[in-house]
Amino acid sequence: MDSYRNNGLNGNFMNGNSSLRQRWNVRPSEMSKKTLNPIRAIVDGMKLTPNPEKPMIALSIGDPTVFGNMPTDDTVLQAVKEAIDSHKYNGYAPSVGYQKSREAVANFYSCPEAPLEDKDVILTSGCSQAIELAISVLCNPGDNILVPRPGFSLYKTLAVSMGIQVKHYNLLPEKSWEIDLQHLESLIDDKTACLIVNNPSNPCGSVFSREHQHKILSVASRNCIPILADEIYGDMVFPGCDFQPLAPLSSDVPILSCGGLAKRWLVPGWRMGWILIHDRNDIFGTGIREGLVKLSQRILGPCTVVQGALESILNDTPPEFYQGTISFLKSNSEICFSELSTVPGLNPVMPSGAMYIMVRIEMEHFPDFQNDVEFTERLVTEQSVFCLPATAFEYPNFFRIVVTVPEEMMIEACIRIREFCARHYRPRSQDSHELDQ
Amino acid sequence: MDSYRNNGLNGNFMNGNSSLRQRWNVRPSEMSKKTLNPIRAIVDGMKLTPNPEKPMIALSIGDPTVFGNMPTDDTVLQAVKEAIDSHKYNGYAPSVGYQKSREAVANFYSCPEAPLEDKDVILTSGCSQAIELAISVLCNPGDNILVPRPGFSLYKTLAVSMGIQVKHYNLLPEKSWEIDLQHLESLIDDKTACLIVNNPSNPCGSVFSREHQHKILSVASRNCIPILADEIYGDMVFPGCDFQPLAPLSSDVPILSCGGLAKRWLVPGWRMGWILIHDRNDIFGTGIREGLVKLSQRILGPCTVVQGALESILNDTPPEFYQGTISFLKSNSEICFSELSTVPGLNPVMPSGAMYIMVRIEMEHFPDFQNDVEFTERLVTEQSVFCLPATAFEYPNFFRIVVTVPEEMMIEACIRIREFCARHYRPRSQDSHELDQ
Ligand SMILES: Cc1ncc(COP(=O)(O)O)c(C=O)c1O
Ligand SMILES: Cc1ncc(COP(=O)(O)O)c(C=O)c1O
Repeated sequence: MDSYRNNGLNGNFMNGNSSLRQRWNVRPSEMSKKTLNPIRAIVDGMKLTPNPEKPMIALSIGDPTVFGNMPTDDTVLQAVKEAIDSHKYNGYAPSVGYQKSREAVANFYSCPEAPLEDKDVILTSGCSQAIELAISVLCNPGDNILVPRPGFSLYKTLAVSMGIQVKHYNLLPEKSWEIDLQHLESLIDDKTACLIVNNPSNPCGSVFSREHQHKILSVASRNCIPILADEIYGDMVFPGCDFQPLAPLSSDVPILSCGGLAKRWLVPGWRMGWILIHDRNDIFGTGIREGLVKLSQRILGPCTVVQGALESILNDTPPEFYQGTISFLKSNSEICFSELSTVPGLNPVMPSGAMYIMVRIEMEHFPDFQNDVEFTERLVTEQSVFCLPATAFEYPNFFRIVVTVPEEMMIEACIRIREFCARHYRPRSQDSHELDQ
Repeated sequence: MDSYRNNGLNGNFMNGNSSLRQRWNVRPSEMSKKTLNPIRAIVDGMKLTPNPEKPMIALSIGDPTVFGNMPTDDTVLQAVKEAIDSHKYNGYAPSVGYQKSREAVANFYSCPEAPLEDKDVILTSGCSQAIELAISVLCNPGDNILVPRPGFSLYKTLAVSMGIQVKHYNLLPEKSWEIDLQHLESLIDDKTACLIVNNPSNPCGSVFSREHQHKILSVASRNCIPILADEIYGDMVFPGCDFQPLAPLSSDVPILSCGGLAKRWLVPGWRMGWILIHDRNDIFGTGIREGLVKLSQRILGPCTVVQGALESILNDTPPEFYQGTISFLKSNSEICFSELSTVPGLNPVMPSGAMYIMVRIEMEHFPDFQNDVEFTERLVTEQSVFCLPATAFEYPNFFRIVVTVPEEMMIEACIRIREFCARHYRPRSQDSHELDQ
């Protein structure tokens, strides 16, 4: 049967061809080994055994839907059901998305200073894939990208797996997490392929002023670096604060703005994201656009029923829905901030948007713990409250609180954090002070 | 304002740092340039101007939903609407999919010879992403993979973009498109990381016998090559023919079987796919499994509402739905085959499943055309019938017909193809025959 081989051997026996493998040796690729998720790596390494006497409160998960207190709007659900009933959205869409759906996104985000048409929009499987495609089209192995510290970990995860070097620029907590522009500019070299700007920020909850964004654009402009603007939390800003998308502020810097339905419409599982191509000076040209189209053909875009619902989701969701989300986030943030501000040893930084607060731990006052990872680990063991140590965002000695939990939980969590800190706080004694000198 | 730079320059002026870029120069990455879709490249290069007197019939699109004659089952639509109404599937799922959804897929495909559990299933954004993840985890740049010729073009598109070499093994039309096993084995070397087996086949519509699959497994086994089994058309086989998934036939060869909802459930736009990990001899081990999990974290899995519907889709879709699809495909295939069999100059190969027929063009009888691309191009110009030239599948002198069109269109298309061939067919003259000798 198997005698088609010259040597006549078959079955599981080896044949004489020395180039053939002699035994099974299937190893995961280098790329898969280099795809590292720091949050997983850190969390998996922690001993997270809650105190059995206190119910667990997880302030760690960047998913606003987990507690059931922040449902999406009925308009959003209805739009998908109508898309299903129409029977029009079961086949393949173009890999960049239906023209009508792209148009809906273009119209939603278009403005006189930065007009958008359907051809400027690429629909993707979540903002994550938008970021993946944007990095993939702009960078070659050996290039470097500039990413915020503290910052969302996916940028590094993706870049490192593609052989792209990551350079972290600092955000300044004392300046409401503005970018240290001097530091940023000092990192640029001729291998710098892209600057990632995340505004509003995960994990900081900060929102850049218009002036600060102009300065960021100046750095990009004079160094000729295109920008990937991660604006997934766009418009999720507290009343009185003004979110300004980056692209309308520049007439020359080419910008790929990444966004999606996940946060503002509270449906992260639906995996609907997009890239808005801003290129009024034709610097990306057709090359980058065609590159994005080609890359989109690898896995063929987001789910069509959600695409079919997109126009109605964007145009018909009532303003009260967005306002409700924002006022809840603001109120919870204020509760958390004012509670923790008075805890000796902690310094929360008040956010202006998104769904996070960063809290500095004055480690010198907590000698029981070596670092933020130990601190948050013990907070689980003793108080059953879990916050992500900001080491997960490359920013030790802070932790991040997600403010989407129900108000009672937020209050209870703050009480427990206070109790925990009171127990472990050590004022710097006169002695040790003198010894230092 | 921008005086934080030492040299005091700002705006769009250059600064003194010689490592900085002096002008805009944003180019698409090598990877995006290497992501080539041969179907697009060929189709975009064709002059496709239909005959204005005849309505266009597209037999080129591998999307069963485009003509509206093959709707999915109501159970499938209902399941998604229920998932939406449950409000349970709006948040993030684990990146490999909900456990319950993975379990539903595992149960659906599990069999005594190849049992599957939830942990053996990774949910992906379509079968395309399943293939992307499988290739990504098994292969490094510089490795090679073995892909069928003729075959689905995505394998090559993905591999080439990742710097993986593609080696084509031949399928034999005269043996119902069985693999030329001798040729296959001759291609293996110590850089061969994966064998891709596509059964039932796009573009051939062929279905391998159990014996043939045993022989394929022998080749993989004695050369220690893992298999990527693309079984997206699994069970879409005509009555009387027996589809046998590959994995249950082997106890040693590790197999990643890729599938999804696209074809059998007629919802390709929904982008729901999966990888079934078959590794009864623990050859993949934890390395490949962990690699797949890591890779899945890049874009975080398929749409959650479809995941939420999966259990009901798999378990509740009535058998009549599948049977209806298959008997329609068979009937249309038979019409097409019997019509084209009697057209001088054409040799259709009768399929046993999937939704395609390959037709050989006896090019020597069509001196008006240089190749299959010209042949199919003129078929559009003259008869408004578009079939994909099989050059798109690396197999010149054939074209592929999609048999999902309504019966009347299939009949009309065959009449037009006959007319077209009659007009261009040239019997080989005695003269030229003698000249040959
Ligand atoms: C800053 C930032 N960008 C992108 C994403 C990913 O969004 P998506 O769920 O649409 O992939 C997140 C998710 O947490 C995020 O925080
Ligand atoms: C052989 C084969 N594999 C995979 C796919 C991709 O399937 P999906 O649409 O689920 O990505 C196709 C689609 O045509 C196909 O023909």
